[in-house]
Amino acid sequence: MSDTPRQMHLGAFLYGVGHHLAAWRHPQVDPAAHTRLADLRRWAQLAEAAHFDAVFLADNVGLPDAPPEVLSRNAPPHLFDPLLVQAALASATERIGLVATVSTTYLPPYHLARKFATLDHLSGGRSGWNLVTSGSEFEARCFGLPHQLEHAERYRIAHEYVQVVRDLWDTWEDDAFVRDAAAGQYFRPDALHRVHHQGRKFAVQGGLQAPRPPQGYPVLVQAGSSDDGQELAAATAELVFTAQQTVQEARTFYQSLKGRLAAHGRGPDALKILPGVSPYVGRSEQEAREKYEQLQSLIDPVVGVGLVSAFLGHVDLSHYPLDGPFPADLPVGEGWKSRHALFNALAQREGLTLRQLSQRVATGRGHWTLVGTPVQIADELEHWFRTGAADGFNVLSPTLPHGLEDFATLVVPELQRRGLFRTRYQGRTLREHLGLPRPVHPAAAARNATALAAA
Amino acid sequence: MSDTPRQMHLGAFLYGVGHHLAAWRHPQVDPAAHTRLADLRRWAQLAEAAHFDAVFLADNVGLPDAPPEVLSRNAPPHLFDPLLVQAALASATERIGLVATVSTTYLPPYHLARKFATLDHLSGGRSGWNLVTSGSEFEARCFGLPHQLEHAERYRIAHEYVQVVRDLWDTWEDDAFVRDAAAGQYFRPDALHRVHHQGRKFAVQGGLQAPRPPQGYPVLVQAGSSDDGQELAAATAELVFTAQQTVQEARTFYQSLKGRLAAHGRGPDALKILPGVSPYVGRSEQEAREKYEQLQSLIDPVVGVGLVSAFLGHVDLSHYPLDGPFPADLPVGEGWKSRHALFNALAQREGLTLRQLSQRVATGRGHWTLVGTPVQIADELEHWFRTGAADGFNVLSPTLPHGLEDFATLVVPELQRRGLFRTRYQGRTLREHLGLPRPVHPAAAARNATALAAA
Repeated sequence: MSDTPRQMHLGAFLYGVGHHLAAWRHPQVDPAAHTRLADLRRWAQLAEAAHFDAVFLADNVGLPDAPPEVLSRNAPPHLFDPLLVQAALASATERIGLVATVSTTYLPPYHLARKFATLDHLSGGRSGWNLVTSGSEFEARCFGLPHQLEHAERYRIAHEYVQVVRDLWDTWEDDAFVRDAAAGQYFRPDALHRVHHQGRKFAVQGGLQAPRPPQGYPVLVQAGSSDDGQELAAATAELVFTAQQTVQEARTFYQSLKGRLAAHGRGPDALKILPGVSPYVGRSEQEAREKYEQLQSLIDPVVGVGLVSAFLGHVDLSHYPLDGPFPADLPVGEGWKSRHALFNALAQREGLTLRQLSQRVATGRGHWTLVGTPVQIADELEHWFRTGAADGFNVLSPTLPHGLEDFATLVVPELQRRGLFRTRYQGRTLREHLGLPRPVHPAAAARNATALAAA
Repeated sequence: MSDTPRQMHLGAFLYGVGHHLAAWRHPQVDPAAHTRLADLRRWAQLAEAAHFDAVFLADNVGLPDAPPEVLSRNAPPHLFDPLLVQAALASATERIGLVATVSTTYLPPYHLARKFATLDHLSGGRSGWNLVTSGSEFEARCFGLPHQLEHAERYRIAHEYVQVVRDLWDTWEDDAFVRDAAAGQYFRPDALHRVHHQGRKFAVQGGLQAPRPPQGYPVLVQAGSSDDGQELAAATAELVFTAQQTVQEARTFYQSLKGRLAAHGRGPDALKILPGVSPYVGRSEQEAREKYEQLQSLIDPVVGVGLVSAFLGHVDLSHYPLDGPFPADLPVGEGWKSRHALFNALAQREGLTLRQLSQRVATGRGHWTLVGTPVQIADELEHWFRTGAADGFNVLSPTLPHGLEDFATLVVPELQRRGLFRTRYQGRTLREHLGLPRPVHPAAAARNATALAAA
């Protein structure tokens, strides 16, 4: 137990030029800024100056199947490879964590283990891997598969994938590389542990060239909220990013997920839960409301409905009237089960039409949206944080960099005044920021156990 | 034709803490420097200050099968993922090219195309892809394959791979992204060209999210010198990195490879040939010789013979006497055909024992080694450059950073005095440094052809 009062963890989610669907159309926003390293660097440095735990980058691959005329009314998502962007940001930052999303579905685990080991070394222990599974047909076809894998099968594979990746990160014990020039001894031979994995899906014989990552393992992040997703998270994740619309739903999810940890021999602090929040911050309520309404007015209805469709596995919504009720009986496939449930609950609770739902989704892409003054927003965040709904938040700035600046310069100081957020980094690694232990190498753990038994 | 006299191109090959096999044992060398981003950055910035065309990073994956006691006497190769390192270096440099080696054998082409598109954007058009195929059993086993693919098959696949990757880079025309906020038009629908590839090895349906790379295509680099390798290079490569021990051999290779270009509709300047050179530079011949001898004295014979073995596909050499003749009849498999021929020629020409050959290979890992004053080294480089053996050189510094500093501060100024090397960067992209044209998008080329026909 530490004497420090429990504090929030904050992620800075960098999505395009802002999380709002129409961010790129905002007059203050440079719509190409996210394609320039200089801007990406400035955004990460802004988050670091505000002492965020980490910068988050989401991902998927490929282009949806919609006709070019429809697609052309909005930015394609996730232009760049998140691992490469985070490597570039590692060079431009000193302390902030760097979380990159990479799907387990189409990248061999050896590549993934090596790439995150590299990022962890380059960043001095600041990397996190947001594990996702790929759930779109258009992604599958980029890799020669006619169809995506079934939802449960993707998660089953992910369990095995995580095991292989961890084994690869354990190729070397922490103190393996002695580099004794005089003796001509580069490493301790008994500190090399080759992987011999023969599983249902993967066969991997070999070892990583890189020394064990500074963090032992990069922080394992997940976002799946379905039952399969929660089970994978309970078994393996250390940070969960989740979409929750109300404090009640968020508490239910928080309790459900934390309640699954014990079965895996894990304490409740071994996993931190960060709902997403999309904050529209004004010095007055009026100013905040105007910022929100300005962006909402820029939504193209076709693009708005397209976003809802994409979140439901690209189901065709074009036959439903825009101003009719949100259809509750959609044939949603294996794509995005948790988002489907969330949209249905939201539409039913508030009696939303398809257009209204699309506008609500547009603000934070399905995440919780807050519009208000710094004090109002801090009140809400504190309420969630203190009542068992969150360990912190992943902040989805409506526009970049202005939305992030608003949060960093207006809300963060208010949270700091309340003792809810750090005023400087205490640690160097992402694990240290999050208060997560560094995984002991299995061989060292076994030796420790033997020594204890002998004592 | 340009009025500028033809100048050399220079690559700075960053390998571990130096290319000499025993570099890590040198008293001036920090044996862990290559694991720290701060040092990698300084080395790249040193090469950029000397106006090198590019920084090169080689690669393979996995650990050879030798017993840990044998492996432990030297550094594992290629600790880090080269793409991530180059992304980090993109953030720390402004002008120098960034060439990363990635094998076509175990990474889906969609991933490769996206990663290099990302690096090209992050670096403002400075990326190069060194295409290799993986030729070791221990690499295959990292990816669930019991054996590597056969040599010719690997190259056949590589041809198709390059085609898929180029098609993906052409997903968007150069001016596709109009980002017209007022009109709500993000891109021109007719500028999107989805890939529909169904080949012998790959099936890829889809498109990249990223805009076309600033260079059109990242510069395509290759190092294969076998007949299969030369054919692939003649069809696709723009820069070839090659190991040549004598000016006669280098001329033969240069003529052979340049001679193959016409059959592919390419002019002789469409491909630049850079032999590797490992320079030991001293202000006097005596000083250069001492630098060389000091490193040679640090070679562990077991490690030296292990390097030769690795270059021959990990053939077992432990039964051959160290001070007996280099065995000419080794059962070398599909691994490294061109290196086998090179070693045989070198051993026969100079009557080398196994130990002597291993010491010769250790200096530059099979590359041409020069020991001398800046004038002597510039004389040799100029001779190769002016007599049809090279378009420039990939500089393999024996130690880092000192070997690179020696070349940058002593040899580069001598080459500049002779008008053989740039004194400042004229261009911004790697293509511009190399004098290579930017590939026109096929759709634009077709429109230009139609317009010409109509005129």
